Amino acid sequence: MSLWTIEADQPTRELASQLTVSNGLIGVKDLTEIPGLRRGPQTDTVVYINGFYDYEPIHYGEAQFGFPQRNQMMVPLPAPTRFDLWLDDVPVDLNQGKVLAEHYQLSMRTGQFQHTLTWEERRTGHQLEIVLTRLTSLKTASLLTQRIQVRALNFKGGRLRVISGLHVHGMVQTKKFDPRLAGVDISDILAHQQVTPLSATMRGTTFTASSSARKLSTVTHYDHPGQWLTDGNWMSQFDLKQAPVAMTKTVWYKLGPVAVDATVKHALTRSFTEIAAMQRAVLETFWQTSDVAITGDDESQRGIRFSQFGLLQALGVHAGQQGIAAKGLTGSGYSGHYFWDTEIYEAPFFYWNHPELARRLLMVRYRQLAHAETYAQSLGLTGALFPWRTINGEESSAYFPASTAAIHIDADIAYLVIRYYQITHDNDFMEKYGAELLLATCRFYLGYGNFDPRKGFVLNTVTGPDEYTALVNNNAYTNYMVQFEMRYLTQHFARTDLQRFHVTVTEWRELQRAAEQMYSETHGDLIAQDDSFLSKRKIDLKQIPRDNFPLLTHYHPLVLYRLQVLKQADLLLAMVLLPEQFTTAQVQTNYDYYEPITTHDSSLSPAIYAIAAARLGQAAGAIKFFKRTVNTDLQNLQGNTADGLHLAAMGGSWITFAWGLMGLTVDDHHATLQPTLPQGWTRCTFNLRYRGEVYAITVTPTTLKVTGGTKQSIKIDQEQRLITLTPVSK
Amino acid sequence: MSLWTIEADQPTRELASQLTVSNGLIGVKDLTEIPGLRRGPQTDTVVYINGFYDYEPIHYGEAQFGFPQRNQMMVPLPAPTRFDLWLDDVPVDLNQGKVLAEHYQLSMRTGQFQHTLTWEERRTGHQLEIVLTRLTSLKTASLLTQRIQVRALNFKGGRLRVISGLHVHGMVQTKKFDPRLAGVDISDILAHQQVTPLSATMRGTTFTASSSARKLSTVTHYDHPGQWLTDGNWMSQFDLKQAPVAMTKTVWYKLGPVAVDATVKHALTRSFTEIAAMQRAVLETFWQTSDVAITGDDESQRGIRFSQFGLLQALGVHAGQQGIAAKGLTGSGYSGHYFWDTEIYEAPFFYWNHPELARRLLMVRYRQLAHAETYAQSLGLTGALFPWRTINGEESSAYFPASTAAIHIDADIAYLVIRYYQITHDNDFMEKYGAELLLATCRFYLGYGNFDPRKGFVLNTVTGPDEYTALVNNNAYTNYMVQFEMRYLTQHFARTDLQRFHVTVTEWRELQRAAEQMYSETHGDLIAQDDSFLSKRKIDLKQIPRDNFPLLTHYHPLVLYRLQVLKQADLLLAMVLLPEQFTTAQVQTNYDYYEPITTHDSSLSPAIYAIAAARLGQAAGAIKFFKRTVNTDLQNLQGNTADGLHLAAMGGSWITFAWGLMGLTVDDHHATLQPTLPQGWTRCTFNLRYRGEVYAITVTPTTLKVTGGTKQSIKIDQEQRLITLTPVSK
Repeated sequence: MSLWTIEADQPTRELASQLTVSNGLIGVKDLTEIPGLRRGPQTDTVVYINGFYDYEPIHYGEAQFGFPQRNQMMVPLPAPTRFDLWLDDVPVDLNQGKVLAEHYQLSMRTGQFQHTLTWEERRTGHQLEIVLTRLTSLKTASLLTQRIQVRALNFKGGRLRVISGLHVHGMVQTKKFDPRLAGVDISDILAHQQVTPLSATMRGTTFTASSSARKLSTVTHYDHPGQWLTDGNWMSQFDLKQAPVAMTKTVWYKLGPVAVDATVKHALTRSFTEIAAMQRAVLETFWQTSDVAITGDDESQRGIRFSQFGLLQALGVHAGQQGIAAKGLTGSGYSGHYFWDTEIYEAPFFYWNHPELARRLLMVRYRQLAHAETYAQSLGLTGALFPWRTINGEESSAYFPASTAAIHIDADIAYLVIRYYQITHDNDFMEKYGAELLLATCRFYLGYGNFDPRKGFVLNTVTGPDEYTALVNNNAYTNYMVQFEMRYLTQHFARTDLQRFHVTVTEWRELQRAAEQMYSETHGDLIAQDDSFLSKRKIDLKQIPRDNFPLLTHYHPLVLYRLQVLKQADLLLAMVLLPEQFTTAQVQTNYDYYEPITTHDSSLSPAIYAIAAARLGQAAGAIKFFKRTVNTDLQNLQGNTADGLHLAAMGGSWITFAWGLMGLTVDDHHATLQPTLPQGWTRCTFNLRYRGEVYAITVTPTTLKVTGGTKQSIKIDQEQRLITLTPVSK
Repeated sequence: MSLWTIEADQPTRELASQLTVSNGLIGVKDLTEIPGLRRGPQTDTVVYINGFYDYEPIHYGEAQFGFPQRNQMMVPLPAPTRFDLWLDDVPVDLNQGKVLAEHYQLSMRTGQFQHTLTWEERRTGHQLEIVLTRLTSLKTASLLTQRIQVRALNFKGGRLRVISGLHVHGMVQTKKFDPRLAGVDISDILAHQQVTPLSATMRGTTFTASSSARKLSTVTHYDHPGQWLTDGNWMSQFDLKQAPVAMTKTVWYKLGPVAVDATVKHALTRSFTEIAAMQRAVLETFWQTSDVAITGDDESQRGIRFSQFGLLQALGVHAGQQGIAAKGLTGSGYSGHYFWDTEIYEAPFFYWNHPELARRLLMVRYRQLAHAETYAQSLGLTGALFPWRTINGEESSAYFPASTAAIHIDADIAYLVIRYYQITHDNDFMEKYGAELLLATCRFYLGYGNFDPRKGFVLNTVTGPDEYTALVNNNAYTNYMVQFEMRYLTQHFARTDLQRFHVTVTEWRELQRAAEQMYSETHGDLIAQDDSFLSKRKIDLKQIPRDNFPLLTHYHPLVLYRLQVLKQADLLLAMVLLPEQFTTAQVQTNYDYYEPITTHDSSLSPAIYAIAAARLGQAAGAIKFFKRTVNTDLQNLQGNTADGLHLAAMGGSWITFAWGLMGLTVDDHHATLQPTLPQGWTRCTFNLRYRGEVYAITVTPTTLKVTGGTKQSIKIDQEQRLITLTPVSK
């Protein structure tokens, strides 16, 4: 098994997702560059640009006041990856010959997708080797480059004609995953395409989304002489030999208008080799910081690398303004929307390895704060409520019981603010942006909830992470997370620190009181998922036929809402996120209660149980859920990898590794690690960034080692179980 | 004030609803028979046929498993009420002259709508008196008859030409009330119209609804010589004189195909006078049984008559298979759907006055039992769940939290079964149909709920009558009503009586145990509307601007669901329906708690508080809410009378009178009355039917009198406060 590549010989829809290259701005998904040579099933051929969306109206059977009226939808764009070939005027296709060999590869070290084909012409027996390579630049976010390289394998040569253009309708439509995308005709969305000639080998095209009127500019360049055809395609001719001939096509993508200045031209006309070298350099730096090296478990090794690489591809390293969509830029699922997955599942990898990127994620939310304030106002409240799913900051969900009511999104963002700060001590961020995010979300909760004389501070009519209940009262996850946030705000800051937000003494006291009196229903160590959960009918999941999972596609919500059944971790997630708040006995009791009634129908679930199991010392359970998480897309475990990769499971892989297996925690005072290697792992090394310094950690079954860093005291206990990093001085 | 008519000189959209004539099958709404003479605003011109509906697909922003895929919609039909007139070839319209006088009248004694106009031709000064009269026959449900009568007022006469046809697009479209009806083009719904000539004066037309393929047959007859024009209209000429000339147009309506046999022809060719006489006779009988005669309060007198007449018009006295739509046949509101209003608000008038009609209502549900069983199965349950809104028995609601979750519909139907039986002792019905309805609905509840070791039998995730909360646990109304039903079933029957339904000993015991252990949260006399209600934020309704009512059109459901605020009576309704279950102190405590937080945004609300107030001896509150109820549509108190009359308020008027002011109750053993006359009322007489006999009751401020009946012992207490009717033997 190659530990740095994903490879296959046959195209599948899942492979198309796995082998998508993206850099946070551009995602390119295509296994069929040469349509005439397609043998397997049709797979998606599409380009996604993070932040380029159209509106579509939302229809309600029974609309009510305040429901969102329009949805944002990431636009599936024509892919500039198409090549049609002629060898001495014979079309290179399956009518004229056959494919002798084919291979696909995505390298996580070079960041390149490569597709190799050997074609034999029937009449002459001439064999061509075709190598298609592409990358979306991690150095220059706007840049897509792709090279086609052809050589005569068993004959002297000839004349090769290449026509390069766009795949216009290459997306496989699917109703299953997101019915809103079914039957979308790209030409309906892209109202205008305006073409601008720039030079003999360079052309600009501007796409305009018909409803949102948002524009996307592209500039295309070819490095080989040729000519533009009337249909907009490009034709080049080559004197084919046994040494390869090659042509590179580069495309520049920019949201809004583009000024095609010297910088752009320079970037577009760089050689493929040069661009590829820069890509390798970026990745070398990335892996130097991020790589988790596992000895003794190749499957986990490759899985965790694929997860980290997927997170990098979804966000990029550039200074963008876009977030991470649920499927990154690998598919149409969830319409390219950003969810709470970002803060809870994906951000931890970044704040422990690339804190500048975690800060970028926070800035995406901060820039959308005005929308969140408007959203809170639509519920008659002050403060801010972030949307459940969005690209531009406006709510894009049509079913409020599982969206607007999921107010924990605010606390999830606040959690990122707090953990980011605890790890980085980035005072500049906290002062300029973090404090405002914390206060605005706390204010929202203070208004949404109320003080019940009998219970304390209650948050009624909410939906927690587990969507198999909705509109419940005092969802434990929500209440614990809100309490954590309110406590942090009121302890970290003095009221007078926040004077510019007009915090009154009364408001400050209310926040303190709400945190103190936050309600949750407990029965000894057992904590109720919400006020009514433990009163509902119990079921035995084993009695449900396997084919009936995921339950939401087989049962009416009124069936699921009435049962003690979970789609995904809920209270346990709070326990994983806030380890300082719960005793081991509590975690054990609630794990034992909730795990057997959790379907893991959401890809967000197994990681959390893995972490809890690891902390409880249940090594078998931990590695089982860890493997399930890292293989979510490599083994298509949710059955819908074709619609895009599960970024939350990719983030989940890393937190399962770090928080679960390595026992990583952090609070205001220090970071700790309490690693346990799964059976078979003989060694594991990885890095963390803490308070501005890099620490390299090596774990073996019997020893711990930490190197790097000077500003923290490093303590390893005598039993070689626990590492503590404590800042020497603030 | 005329106490038997509704009259006006100006057309308004509200008047069109108030003056609709209907007979349970046909509803005719039109104030503009002669389009050329319309002066006021455009008002609805439409015919509704109870049970004639089309399907339309329901669109969901986010559909989930088991959601209804199509909606039934009562088809707004072209109205055959149009007449265009020419006097000596001059069009009788507002270009050629003016209307000197106009008057509209609906008589509750004759059952006739009458529209009188005086038109003066500008050029000649000639004046015409035109009288348009129509009725939908209460004797022969399929029959609509209408007469146009014209005379020369101030001139000798001339030639009058009348063209009679259909108003095809006469409905005023409104988005406000039911967005699903906005922009409906009748021609989209009615795919085909097939015309069949039957005789020189008679023609058949069949309408076919395009999606449901349901057919409606009509036969039209004119009693005056004339000719069919190519556009399908009818033209007649008259030798106009000072004595009136008249033409009668009759139309036969039948769901499905019609055989135009001798009976149909005979009915169609009867003279207007004869049909009108039959109508008067039916109404005479109706009022003999039903009339409530009030001395001293004309407004209430007319209001209660209008309500009773409205109930009669909505249901008819024929042997139909249709229920009562929320707006009867007076408007497009709620798409012609039947709701729980029927059983709880409208049926009482019928079971106390016309029990054969109450039985008919029950049979409408019984015939739809198979659909209700399928619906229960869609939730994985046995038994039957009746749809929240329907015409044909299939669910027609697009928002399950306020429809499917409102499972109290089953108990509401069961309540009608029980009260109907207690009043009639109709053993034939109970054995053949009632028992099955009770058992099927109880079985559903047993499956929907569960036994919680701490609480007892719980019904989680339901919505009660008050729709300003949804998906709550243990809605008090629902739980009390279900308990009542389960108790009645298990006490009235022995298990062995129900052997044909395969009731096991275990199931029977579970039913008994569920009834015994039915949970509700109580705090002394205060009963919680649901498990979380009392924990929610309290608000002061007086702080909300008047313009923001009804709240549902100004606030997001997540605002309303979190507050202690009611759209309508909820727990109080259970107290009103089940007076035997609650002490006066309980009623008082809960009235005082809930009334101030009830917006009465639903027209179903004031009646219930009126009854509770009356029983508590709060005469002022009782008469205030009573007047609000009887004037709901006469004074357009909900602001949407234009979209149809509020049948639930019409039923509510009667129960407010009977249960509230007259203190009427019934149980297994007897019926009792404890009347209190409101201030100003000097005398009140009315009838009740109890166990097959009619009782006439006369109430004055100081005396009670009962006459009629021989099989019950009549007891009036010494203080002249309480009447008890006790069956002498069973």
